[in-house]
Order: sequence, then structure tokens, then C-alpha cells
Amino acid sequence: AVFMTAPAFAASNTQAELDALKAQIEALQRKVDDVQIQHGNAIKSLEERKSDVEVSLKDGRPVFKSADGNFTFGITGRAHLDVGGYDMSDSDEANMIAATGNPDGLRGNANFRRLRLGFNGTFAKDFGYNIEFNFGDSGTESDARIYEALLTYKGIEGVNLVLGATKPKMTLDDSTSSNDITFIERATAVNLAITPAAGEARMTAGGTFNTDNFFGATYYTAGSAASGGGLDDYDSSNVVGRLAYATSPKEGLNVHIGASASHSFNLPGDSVRFRDRPELRVDADRYIDANFAGAADTATVYGPELAFNYGPFRAQGEYYRYEVDGIAGGSADMDAWYLQASWILTGESYKYDIKKAAYSGVKPDNPFGFGGGGAGAWEVAARYSHANLNDTSIGLNGGEQDIITVGLNWYANNNLRFMLNYLDVDVEDRGAAQLDFGHQALALRTQFAF
Amino acid sequence: AVFMTAPAFAASNTQAELDALKAQIEALQRKVDDVQIQHGNAIKSLEERKSDVEVSLKDGRPVFKSADGNFTFGITGRAHLDVGGYDMSDSDEANMIAATGNPDGLRGNANFRRLRLGFNGTFAKDFGYNIEFNFGDSGTESDARIYEALLTYKGIEGVNLVLGATKPKMTLDDSTSSNDITFIERATAVNLAITPAAGEARMTAGGTFNTDNFFGATYYTAGSAASGGGLDDYDSSNVVGRLAYATSPKEGLNVHIGASASHSFNLPGDSVRFRDRPELRVDADRYIDANFAGAADTATVYGPELAFNYGPFRAQGEYYRYEVDGIAGGSADMDAWYLQASWILTGESYKYDIKKAAYSGVKPDNPFGFGGGGAGAWEVAARYSHANLNDTSIGLNGGEQDIITVGLNWYANNNLRFMLNYLDVDVEDRGAAQLDFGHQALALRTQFAF
Amino acid sequence: AVFMTAPAFAASNTQAELDALKAQIEALQRKVDDVQIQHGNAIKSLEERKSDVEVSLKDGRPVFKSADGNFTFGITGRAHLDVGGYDMSDSDEANMIAATGNPDGLRGNANFRRLRLGFNGTFAKDFGYNIEFNFGDSGTESDARIYEALLTYKGIEGVNLVLGATKPKMTLDDSTSSNDITFIERATAVNLAITPAAGEARMTAGGTFNTDNFFGATYYTAGSAASGGGLDDYDSSNVVGRLAYATSPKEGLNVHIGASASHSFNLPGDSVRFRDRPELRVDADRYIDANFAGAADTATVYGPELAFNYGPFRAQGEYYRYEVDGIAGGSADMDAWYLQASWILTGESYKYDIKKAAYSGVKPDNPFGFGGGGAGAWEVAARYSHANLNDTSIGLNGGEQDIITVGLNWYANNNLRFMLNYLDVDVEDRGAAQLDFGHQALALRTQFAF
Repeated sequence: AVFMTAPAFAASNTQAELDALKAQIEALQRKVDDVQIQHGNAIKSLEERKSDVEVSLKDGRPVFKSADGNFTFGITGRAHLDVGGYDMSDSDEANMIAATGNPDGLRGNANFRRLRLGFNGTFAKDFGYNIEFNFGDSGTESDARIYEALLTYKGIEGVNLVLGATKPKMTLDDSTSSNDITFIERATAVNLAITPAAGEARMTAGGTFNTDNFFGATYYTAGSAASGGGLDDYDSSNVVGRLAYATSPKEGLNVHIGASASHSFNLPGDSVRFRDRPELRVDADRYIDANFAGAADTATVYGPELAFNYGPFRAQGEYYRYEVDGIAGGSADMDAWYLQASWILTGESYKYDIKKAAYSGVKPDNPFGFGGGGAGAWEVAARYSHANLNDTSIGLNGGEQDIITVGLNWYANNNLRFMLNYLDVDVEDRGAAQLDFGHQALALRTQFAF
Repeated sequence: AVFMTAPAFAASNTQAELDALKAQIEALQRKVDDVQIQHGNAIKSLEERKSDVEVSLKDGRPVFKSADGNFTFGITGRAHLDVGGYDMSDSDEANMIAATGNPDGLRGNANFRRLRLGFNGTFAKDFGYNIEFNFGDSGTESDARIYEALLTYKGIEGVNLVLGATKPKMTLDDSTSSNDITFIERATAVNLAITPAAGEARMTAGGTFNTDNFFGATYYTAGSAASGGGLDDYDSSNVVGRLAYATSPKEGLNVHIGASASHSFNLPGDSVRFRDRPELRVDADRYIDANFAGAADTATVYGPELAFNYGPFRAQGEYYRYEVDGIAGGSADMDAWYLQASWILTGESYKYDIKKAAYSGVKPDNPFGFGGGGAGAWEVAARYSHANLNDTSIGLNGGEQDIITVGLNWYANNNLRFMLNYLDVDVEDRGAAQLDFGHQALALRTQFAF
Repeated sequence: AVFMTAPAFAASNTQAELDALKAQIEALQRKVDDVQIQHGNAIKSLEERKSDVEVSLKDGRPVFKSADGNFTFGITGRAHLDVGGYDMSDSDEANMIAATGNPDGLRGNANFRRLRLGFNGTFAKDFGYNIEFNFGDSGTESDARIYEALLTYKGIEGVNLVLGATKPKMTLDDSTSSNDITFIERATAVNLAITPAAGEARMTAGGTFNTDNFFGATYYTAGSAASGGGLDDYDSSNVVGRLAYATSPKEGLNVHIGASASHSFNLPGDSVRFRDRPELRVDADRYIDANFAGAADTATVYGPELAFNYGPFRAQGEYYRYEVDGIAGGSADMDAWYLQASWILTGESYKYDIKKAAYSGVKPDNPFGFGGGGAGAWEVAARYSHANLNDTSIGLNGGEQDIITVGLNWYANNNLRFMLNYLDVDVEDRGAAQLDFGHQALALRTQFAF
């Protein structure tokens, strides 16, 4: 009986324990359900919130992006602060003043070559815009004026249409961002090339097209929207084009060949003027100058581009002819070219971007700052630049300019770069008296961008 | 015994299993508790973060809002790019130049009529501000200048007080945003009305009040804070007022009646000048011009507004009188008016906003872009505008101007609008020689706003 | 057998229940695991998102900060709107016009003294920048121009290095933000002190150093980057320094002693001009003026600073000598000083910041707005200011100026301040004819900042 009661007792006891366990499990089940629902809802509401707008701050640049990616907004800025000095003999200075009519010689200075703020974004998925203004200038600073005010349409694969005020991308080096160029200033050959048709804030309609290896761009341009530009009139009518092919491999040797051209068929005031500063703008004076005032019909610019890069090595060159028709004596024929080579001592590779058929900037592997002390990236570079604005057939004496530049660049991090340039400038046969002069210059750019 | 051992075995076996289950349940319970606490805390901390600042990007406009709603910050922009051409006979041009003294005829052009960036926000719940600057202009572009720099106070129900530099809202069409007006330019009647007391960037103190059907506004204004305005002196003293009543139903027919008036009792340099461009500002020249220089005591403007809208149909008109007292001959009496009608072909309804007693913009039901291909909204419109700045009683020959405008608007999406306007302009009895002239014009506005 | 079957039945029954419970527990365990994993992942992904960029909107100022704190971006703005009037006798006005050559008398006005927008941030942890532009001015408004474009480096403890265009901090009151100064304008003594070497947007390289009680600053400066400044040339070469010691307790009495100095050893055009408006800039005319044009070698400024604050009480004073060498007659010796005291009626305490060795702004305990109705903070203040630009030893007649100012400030909340100033201005021995004149002025500043 004892034996019998035990199981009986055990059974009822077991049943009670079982019931208790059941109740416990049910309570736990309810709790888990509650937690699942409660936390699930909270997470869902947080995730819905997550889907509102994404905020990023890569390299310090604020960008806001809607969940569906149809809208974005970002802010960018860049400051290029140049400090430089010139060394010129008294006789050279006398000749320079006599030949150019500049009131005084070159003066060392510190100024913002560029100080720009930009507001850009995407809307309705396929459209984009960039509104950017600039305080910087050559030799001095300005009040804020329009640098770019552009609408874009990217609804067609590989195509980017633009409408508004922009600098249409012509030549290889002008297609490279001013944040990414190798020397403080682009070569005179390039600056002359963009003069008649492709300067800053030009009223522009056109676009680019690219595949993995081909790039093409074509634009119609009128005057400039930068206030004080004085060209704000569609009396200025130009077409601009550029074609390029690049082998564009992921790694290894990349070869770029291209050509740029512009034709200006409606010159404002029947005038066009080819001139440039001697590849440094700390002083705003210009040396060479071919001024066709009041008697020019058309201006045409064209020439080839060639470049290659292999790891930390890069070389590039461009050659342009500048022709002005309808002037007294028939037509003027001028040309200019440059060759440059550069080497990143710290071993980073140059990057080529077929979307603009030009080079992107150097990004240091070991950036300086961040409380650590990376060395950044170091680059050496040299350039030979030649420009000939003389045409004896029509008695044109714009001058012949040769400049050798050597440069040392320190890319501290993705926001900060220092550029040190030494220039040896030589001008010959400038003006009716065919005067010669030249100078040496040393300049440091402190460049900040986000 | 075998039988007995079975239950005994079963009982002890059962107890072991029960104990194991108990342990399992307890472990699970602890785990659930842990998960509940851990996830709960994580979610709470995420939710607390959620309450920091809300970021939105509606129609591409970035807006930041504190959790309590007491502070907001937003950025807006608008670009109005006009391209236009004029057709004028040689005899008309000769008369125009003779009558107006403009150095040359009208010239086609491409320029930014407006290029504005604005920074606005709310602070301490009841206060608001808007700082907006502008690069655009008539016929050309400018350096960045103040468009608006305004403080507001909304702490009183239905009331909005303003202090700072702003364009006080006078007349129906000037109370409509430049992003939302039906034609490329407002009618001359409206532009003349705001001239003496209610132009851009006026130093202003005042406010608006509204209920569901009534609207009232009153302002004291001085000179303009837009640099170069030349009126930056409280020698300019004016009062401005506006009253309106609208039936304002949620749907169906809405009828608006109103009146605007201003009185300038302290004219800068005792001068006031009523003039306007011929309802297109691609060229900056003005046709009609009544210039009271150095001898005016007061200027008074007043007149009625009338408008109605029903679904995709809308009509509106305004009439203003302009009186100048204290001049030689006693006083000048001029007037101007316009009538316009518009129809949204794609069927969207016009929206009226009693908070400003004016119309809001058209929002397309099927926007273009977004990778799809909605048709956007299409609108046709016509306007007749008349202005008479002649007063024979005092020998005033400012000219009489009649302009017929027909327009076609494409609202691609909430950010982008294209406007095509054709204008037939006729001026009579302009200047002492009472010359007649006129022209036709065609213009396209590309409008982007966020 | 019956007894036996019962336990047998019970046992098998129990076993079934046990099995069911086991299954239930296992299912629940899986569910809990699932919930733990699922919710855990969701929370983790939300937390990762959390770590992206923090957005804050303290006092309405938007600031974005990367998770690691190495990058930030923020936007600031300030608007100082002044309305003022002058009371001057006819004889005083005649003397003023005769002595200063100003074309007409002082005119009341409303204008933005400052209207600034700034974009600032941190990059690569140790670097910072501020780009700020300004529309406001003295007596009128301007197009947007550079106010500051500055790079900073904070990688060394207690040190802040700067490079770019800035107003180097010299004198106590000029080291105080224009949002936080006690009167509408700083004293003439301070404005004269910063003239040769430390004005707005000066091209600057230098830095500050501080401990808990010491502060030191030293700068090399050149010309101004504000367009139209006309000094944008490193013909202007100056050194600027400042030293201060403060007891800086957390509470109670704080005593500040300091000294500021500058030496200009390369004056642009061999010229320097000490002049200032009569401590109100509603009208842009200046009274006192010592102009050394074309014949100055060096200019030196130096003098002591003294201040103390105790709870809601504060007093401060500065004295400066201005010496110009190399001029006809040898050298000029001028001086100026001021004493001021202020009291916050609502009891808030003044805050001193050793990082700039100057005072921070008053923050009201009970702000106005927010739908409530706090009284804000109220402050009364008085200042005596003296400047002597006469030096009989060389026949210099720049004038001697005494100004008493009393002020009432209302700090409505952390964004909004109103300042009411009454000034009694007295000038003696101005110009070769040693004329005397003066005026009373009343002005209201509406100040908004975020």
C-alpha cells in the first residue's frame, strides 16, 4: 500500500507540477508574444524613421538623401589660398612695363585664388542641380558672384545633359577639378583654349556621353553669368566639343587620347582676346596678349590630348591651335602646348575617371591628422609650357612665352593639400618693339576642400 | 515488483524530467527577461535618439526640426533662367530710342532673372527668420545681395508680425510667390503699385492677420537694404495696407475680393518714379516712365483686386490708381490694370491660401522624372495689361502701354517648371513728342526651386 | 491491477503531457531565439545607423557630427539691425561739416550693421575651418563679401593655430564676440587699436595658447581679403600680440588683467589712418581722423586691459597709445581709453572664457518665447570713452572725442537681443581751425543670432 500510495501521490503531485509548468510556460509564451509585438513595433517605427533621410558626412561633406534615393542635398566648399613672390631684374621689369602697359611690376601677395561654396542635389530621381558661388579671384578677392548655376538630367543611361551657367569641360586639364590639378595653375595652352567659348559661368546647353572606354561632350555656349563678366549677351554664340578614348583598366597602364575643339561664330562686339597670366595669379598682370578688338568674325580652337598613368607615375600633354578669322590681314594663327610628368613618392596610384575623361585627385593612404600622424601623400612634378601668340604674317605681336614649373605637393589628408611651385618664366618678342623679359616665382598654395 | 518498479521508475523519471523542464523554463525565463531588458534599453536609447532632431527632404528641401518643435532650420533655393528674343521694326526702334533715351534697341539674351538661396528657421517656438540672398536681376546678373532678412513672431493666433528687410505683400499678384505666378513677369499695374512703398528688401515693420475668410496686412516701410538700392534712409517713410475676403471653400468655386493701398509721406529726395519694363526682363530697358524728381510731397497708390477659381479654371484682375502730390501743376493722376485667365489642361485644381490671400502653385498629379514618365501638368493662360502714365492736365508724358500675353506652362514636377510666353507690346504717346512704338517678344523660362 | 493500471495510465498520461510541454518549451525557445536574433539584428542595424552622423539643433544652430567625432559641419548666422537718430544743433553741424569735410550732417537711418552667414566644421579630428560672409556694413549694406575664411589646427593641447583671413583677436573688447558686446559699438579706443594690424578679414598666420589662468596670442598679419579693402598686398606687414591673466574661478569674483600690442613695420603706401565713427554707425560719417598718408614708416599700438566680474556685476577698461614713426616732424603720439560698468538686473552671472580671455554672452534664466512668457534677462550699462588724436608737437589735429553712453539691453532668449543706447558725443579741437562740435544720439539694435 505504501508502494501504491507513492505513485498515487506522485501522480497527483506530478499533475500539480505539470499544471504549474503549463501555467508558467503559458505566461512565458504571452510574455514572449508581448515582447515580440512591443519590441517589433518599436523597431518597425524606428526603421520607418530610419527610412526618412540618410545623413552622411564623408570627408566632412554633409549629404542628405531620401530613403528612395530620389532626392539628395549636399553642401561643398573649397578655399585655395596662394602666397607668392616674384624675382625680376630691373631691365626685365622695364621691358615688361613697356611691352604690356601694366602700371607697375609684379608684386608678391597673399590672396584667395578660389573661395567657393556650393549647394547641390538630386530631385525627381533623374534631375540634379549645382548652385555654387565664388569669392576668390586672380590677384585679389571679389564679392560673391555666380560660379555655377546648373540643371542636369541623368535619365538616359551614360548621358548627362546640362542647362544653365557652367564652365563647359574642354581640354584634358580643364576637365580636371581645380582641387585635383597637379600645379597651382593650369598651363597657358589650356587657359587660352577655353577663352573664347568655355570660360566660367557660361550660359550653356549640352551634355556628355560615356561608355567604359569612350567619352564625348558637346555644348552650345553664350556669355557668362558671372556678374561683371560683361559678356552676358547671346551675341556670343559658340559650339564646344571634346572626344576621348582611354584603355581604362582597373589596374596597370592606362592610356588616354583625346581632342578638344571650339568654334565661336558670333563674337560679342566682333572681339576676341587671347591672353593669360604667367601660370601664377598672385599678381593679376598678364604677359602675353593677342587682342582682336572690333574686327573678328570667328575664332576656332582645336588640338589633341595625350596622357598615360601607371601606378604612381603619370604624364600628359596637350597642343592647341587658335585661329581668328575676318580680321584685317585675313586670319591669325597661334598655338600653345605643354608637357608634364608627375610621380607620387609615397606610392599611391593615379585614378582616371572615364565619366569626365580626366584624372581624379590623389587620396593619401596614410592621412595626417586624426590624432595620429600619417605622412600623407607626397608628389613631385615638372611641366614645360610654351605659347606663341605671334603671327608675323599679319604683324601680330602677342608674345612668345616659355615656362618651366617644378612642383612639390603634400596631400595631408582628403581635405587638405599644400602645393609648392617654382616657375621660370621667359617671354620673347612681345609688342611692336618685340621686347624680351622674364622672372622667377615661388608660390605656396594652401588648399582646403570638403 | 516489476509492475511496481515501473511506476516508481516512472515517478522518479517523471520528476527528473519535470526538474529538467523547470530548469529549462527558468533558463528561458531569464533569457526572455534578459532579451526584454537588453532590447528594451537599446530601443529606448534609439527612441531617445529619435527624439533629437528630425530631418526631412520633401521636394528636395532639407529641413531640421528639434523634437519639441521649438527650433527648425531649412535651406531653400530658386533659379529662374530666362531666354528671350524681341522683334521690332526699325521705325519702332527709332521712336523707342528717341522717346526713352535708351542707347540701343532691345537685345535678346539669356540670364538669371532670379538666383536665390535662403536660410530660414524657427526659434523659441514663436519666432522665425528668413535670410535670403539673390544673384539674379533684370537683363543681367549681380553679385550676391540681400533679398530678405526678416524676423517674424507668431505667438498670437492668426497673426504674423514681421521686422526687417522684406518685400511687404501688396496687391494680389505680388502676394503670389514668383515660383507660382502665371506669367514670366507680373503685370505692369502690379509692378507700378509696389514701386513707392513695397519693393524688395524694404526696411519693414508690420504684420498680417487672417481668419478662414478674412485677411488683413499693414506695414510701415522705409528704404531698401539691397545694396546699391540707394534708398537706405528713413527719409523714405510709407504705410502699406491690404484687405481681402475670400469664400475659401475646401472645394468648388472660390471668390476673392480685396484692395491694396500705400501712402508715401516722406519721399527720398522729394522724388518718386513710376516705370516698368514691358513685362519681360531679358532686356533691362524700360518703356513707360513717369519721373517726379525733386518736387514730390506724397505718393498714393490704391485699387481693388478680384479673382475666382473653380477646379482647373481661374481668372483674376487688379486696377490701381497712382497719385503724386506737391509737384508743379498740383498733382499727377495715373492708372493701370490687367485681366488674366488660365486653365490647367491636365485637370489639377488651383489652390487658394487665405494665410496670404493669394494663390499657391500648381502641383502636377503625374510628375515627370522619378524614372517613370508622368506628363506633368500643362496650363494655358492669357493676359491683357494696360498702363497709363500720361496726365495731360500737368503735361505728363510717361506713356500709355498695352500688352497682350499668351502663355503655356509645363509643371514637370514639384521642382521644375517651364514657361513659354508670347507678348505683343504697344506704347503710345510716350515723351514730349508723343511717340508710338511696340514689339513682339518670345521668351522661355526654366524654373527650378526647392 | 486496477491500482496498477491507474499509475500506468497516469504515467503514460504524464509522459504525454511532459512531451507536450517539452515540445512547447522547445518551440518557445526557438521563438525566443528567433526574436532575439531578429530583433537583435534590427537593433544592431539601427544602432549602426545611429553611429553614422549625429544631428543637433541647439539654440537653432544645425550641427552634424560623425560618429567618431573626427568630422563636423555647422551653419551659423547673425543679423544686427540698427535704427537710430541724431540730434545736433545747426552750429555744431556747420562746424562738423567744416572740420571733417563730410558733405552733409548725420542722418538717421535703419540698416544692417552685420548680416553674416557662416559655414564651419572639423576635419581629420585636429583641423577646423570657418567660412563666413557678410552683407552688413556701417551706414548701409554691401554685396556679400568675405568676413572670415580660416583654417585652424588644434592638434596640440591648449594651442589653436590659425591660417587664413580673419580678424586677429587684439584688445579685450575686440576679443568679445559682436553678439556679446555690452554696447551697440565698441569704444573708439578699441576700434583705433585694431586699425593698423588687426581689422576684418586680415590675411593672418598665428595662434593662441591658454592654460586655466593664462592666455597668449600672437599673429603675423598682412592686408584684408574683404573685397574692396584695397589692402590686399603683403606690403602690409604687422605683428600682433596679446597676453592675459585671469583668476577664472568657477564662481565668485573674477579679475582679468592683460595687455595688447601691434607693430606695423611695412605700411601699405607708407600710409596709416586712425579714425572712427562716434560709437554709432547708423550714419557712416567719422568725426576724429589722423591721416598719415605717404610718409609713415611704422605704426605701434599698445596698452593694458583690466576687468572684473562678480555675479551680475562687471566692470572693464582699456587704455591704448598709438605711435606713428617716420613722418614729417618725427613721430606722432596719440591715445584713447574707456571705462564701462554693467549690471544684469535679473541676476544672471557674467561668464568669462579663458580660451579667448574675454567675456561670453548673457544667457537668460527665464527666456521669452516658447509659448510661455519668461521675462528674459535685463541689463543696464554705462561707458565713458575718450580719444585724443591731437599731437601739438607735430601740428596734428585729428580731434579729441569724449562720449558718454548709457545702455539698456533685453536678452529675450538665446537667439534674440534688443539694445537701446543713448550717446552724448563731444569733439574738440578738430582740424586746423580747431573746431568744436557734438550731438546726442538714440539707437535701437535688434540682434538675432543662431
